Amino acid sequence: MAATTSSYSITMRLHTAVDHGIVGSVATAIAAVGGIVTAIDVVDSRHDRLVLDVTCSASDADHSQELVAAADKLDGVEVHKVSDRTFLLHIGGKIEVASKVPLRNRDDLSMAYTPGVGRVSAALAENPDDVSRLTVKGNSVAVVTDGSAVLGLGNIGPGAALPVMEGKAALFKRFADIDAWPICLASQDTDEIVKAVEMIAPGFGGINLEDIAAPRCFEIERRLRESLDIPVFHDDQHGTAIVVLAALTNALRVVGKTLPQSRVVVSGAGAAGSAIVTLLLAAGAADVVVYDRQGCLSSDDASLPPAQAELASRTNPRKVRGDLLAALAGADVFVGVSAPGVLKPEWIKEMADDAVVFALANPDPEVDPAEAEKYAAVVASGRSDYPNQINNVLAFPGVFRGLLDARASHVTTEMLLRAAEAIAAVVKDEELNANFIIPTVFNTQVPKAVAAAIAGTD
Amino acid sequence: MAATTSSYSITMRLHTAVDHGIVGSVATAIAAVGGIVTAIDVVDSRHDRLVLDVTCSASDADHSQELVAAADKLDGVEVHKVSDRTFLLHIGGKIEVASKVPLRNRDDLSMAYTPGVGRVSAALAENPDDVSRLTVKGNSVAVVTDGSAVLGLGNIGPGAALPVMEGKAALFKRFADIDAWPICLASQDTDEIVKAVEMIAPGFGGINLEDIAAPRCFEIERRLRESLDIPVFHDDQHGTAIVVLAALTNALRVVGKTLPQSRVVVSGAGAAGSAIVTLLLAAGAADVVVYDRQGCLSSDDASLPPAQAELASRTNPRKVRGDLLAALAGADVFVGVSAPGVLKPEWIKEMADDAVVFALANPDPEVDPAEAEKYAAVVASGRSDYPNQINNVLAFPGVFRGLLDARASHVTTEMLLRAAEAIAAVVKDEELNANFIIPTVFNTQVPKAVAAAIAGTD
Repeated sequence: MAATTSSYSITMRLHTAVDHGIVGSVATAIAAVGGIVTAIDVVDSRHDRLVLDVTCSASDADHSQELVAAADKLDGVEVHKVSDRTFLLHIGGKIEVASKVPLRNRDDLSMAYTPGVGRVSAALAENPDDVSRLTVKGNSVAVVTDGSAVLGLGNIGPGAALPVMEGKAALFKRFADIDAWPICLASQDTDEIVKAVEMIAPGFGGINLEDIAAPRCFEIERRLRESLDIPVFHDDQHGTAIVVLAALTNALRVVGKTLPQSRVVVSGAGAAGSAIVTLLLAAGAADVVVYDRQGCLSSDDASLPPAQAELASRTNPRKVRGDLLAALAGADVFVGVSAPGVLKPEWIKEMADDAVVFALANPDPEVDPAEAEKYAAVVASGRSDYPNQINNVLAFPGVFRGLLDARASHVTTEMLLRAAEAIAAVVKDEELNANFIIPTVFNTQVPKAVAAAIAGTD
Repeated sequence: MAATTSSYSITMRLHTAVDHGIVGSVATAIAAVGGIVTAIDVVDSRHDRLVLDVTCSASDADHSQELVAAADKLDGVEVHKVSDRTFLLHIGGKIEVASKVPLRNRDDLSMAYTPGVGRVSAALAENPDDVSRLTVKGNSVAVVTDGSAVLGLGNIGPGAALPVMEGKAALFKRFADIDAWPICLASQDTDEIVKAVEMIAPGFGGINLEDIAAPRCFEIERRLRESLDIPVFHDDQHGTAIVVLAALTNALRVVGKTLPQSRVVVSGAGAAGSAIVTLLLAAGAADVVVYDRQGCLSSDDASLPPAQAELASRTNPRKVRGDLLAALAGADVFVGVSAPGVLKPEWIKEMADDAVVFALANPDPEVDPAEAEKYAAVVASGRSDYPNQINNVLAFPGVFRGLLDARASHVTTEMLLRAAEAIAAVVKDEELNANFIIPTVFNTQVPKAVAAAIAGTD
């Protein structure tokens, strides 16, 4: 059975008889079908009944229904209501705006708003360079999406993407004290997206592109980097690439190999895949083979569309053709950012000794990490229920903290390399092992180290 | 001398001799030149010197220099540093984003972000109507400007306008618990502004247009109201119109007149002027004459540009032509939303008995309120240092609170009329007098009453 998770946590309100031992019976019944009871609150106790709120974690939606059925089946127990804690958490949204200045009385208003604010605006009209210092622009990031490639859900549109963008904004605040606001765009047209971001840019200190489908995302980012004077960062590309490079740096430390000497296979030529390849090459990788649904990308394949042909021109020096298994023979590293199950566990045997396998497709990886561990020396995934979680939260908060602190106008490859190095270096030699190649997202050193690396002040 | 204001408040750091009585001498010297000392803090006391922080209000920038000079002139006093409190308040901006959900551990992350958020997004893709309920959209407003008509400063551009938009966002939160975010646009082209607002609309529950120049603002608002399914409200127009109608309702109660019987002169045919006229006509006014820089608008004047001709077609039934004085003869009400000093105090004598004068140009009104009081029965202005301040803060927070509460898709004239009535009704009969026709912005009943009136739940 898969691990239970709070993301499938429910609270059942039970009306029960006042039998001695009824609370224990409920807990036992839920545990018997694999649920984890995390809290039982007695909401009301009367002579003829108890009202209990029982909170428990399930492994998925079907499992949570089983937990409810198990409780309902008990004598003297009636399930009155079931609340999904994740949905409850989302009611009313997850972020809010707060005033940093007091607005208690007329004097306060006269400084924060008219007439006092007029002097500040007049000063900024004279000295536009001060806008970042005297407004929220200096600490704010727009989290921009068109809703076209949201998590594993695909093209669900801007409204349905909003909970993800809000979550991202909450993480920006939590991990780097950045004021991020979600901007969900009404069009998936490249020109319209570029224009919209250019239009809103004056109020923001940075642009975080999020969950925009490839290949559109490449052109959007390139054009915005040319036209804007604030940094533009597509997290699905560069955030992922930074964390992958950080984890791979440490994985290779564990197995005693170097990146320039390693053969690397990347499965997936989308936004994440192409950014990972670019960063690995910049970090010194010399033998990278990219595999997509059509096979291995090779520069001698005239049938490739432009984005793939470009990627092929920079990779696959040995001109490997064919399926994934062909690419894997003798490879030191597999990085998957593609689709569930594309890597059969036993194929890992064809790789070089001490193979490194990163299976990052979300929520279901290219290979079950537990199966991969049988053949590979180091395994990482996007999942929190296995060791070595590759999580963008390790990168993006610190990246933008550093960009804003430095008042940087552009993101450079050197910055990304330094950020990856900084994350890798948080894991000390004495901590490093095959099950601990990357720090946890709650390690407070990480965003600080990344910010310093990005700003060049480390 | 004009009244002192906190918007010109400074803090001087003084190094002084340790003379007995030096603190009193400083306070006396500042008061002697008209400054108001609001705080004296002894920051450091040593055997050879004191360090004092002296905070005081001035009437304007020159006056604050006089206060500094007065302190500096004293024997044994050296002005070490002068801080402008309004600028200090603005450093780092006035608003921030806060997370409403805990992000303490992996379980929290798994509900607020991946994987839990994916279930919420998937549900919203199925049921788009739930977006407002499960995201910040249901409580959020975009405060949109192109920076073309900011306060009394004119076309200062989007960056310099940001402090004003941030102040507005802070007021939205303070007075109606609304999460507003400033959107400062990089273009002043009507088509580009309309398109940009359409593009960002999916993430917001309402659009507050702000400080966009006339006549562009009319077309922008009209087109957005047609294309969007969320309410669009140009505060400079309709917010002002609501508060003016509320104040005028009560002013006429004071002088025992009715709006249908009153002759009204409106000076200014810009955004505020035309919205005021529209709302007064909807409220029953029958004789409104609009005066702009070229004279009285009259439908028999073929030379008028389109916006003015439209306004003329709905006003001036007696076909008054000529200057402001011509229009004022026998008028019951003057409403100025134009320029400083256009109304000479003695012209008010030409108005009907018990004249009502609203001089709302900011920061310097059409006529000095103190002078106008000599001739008019009721005087109002935009200034906080005279009675009867006409302040949009009375309207916009409650307006959007009501729109969001009702999940309204459009703003109607009936809503605006009800909002004005609700503000007027907050002033009880026993409170009403010529110096108290409008509640203060800190009256907590006001936003509640306006919200209920807008939502139709009052």
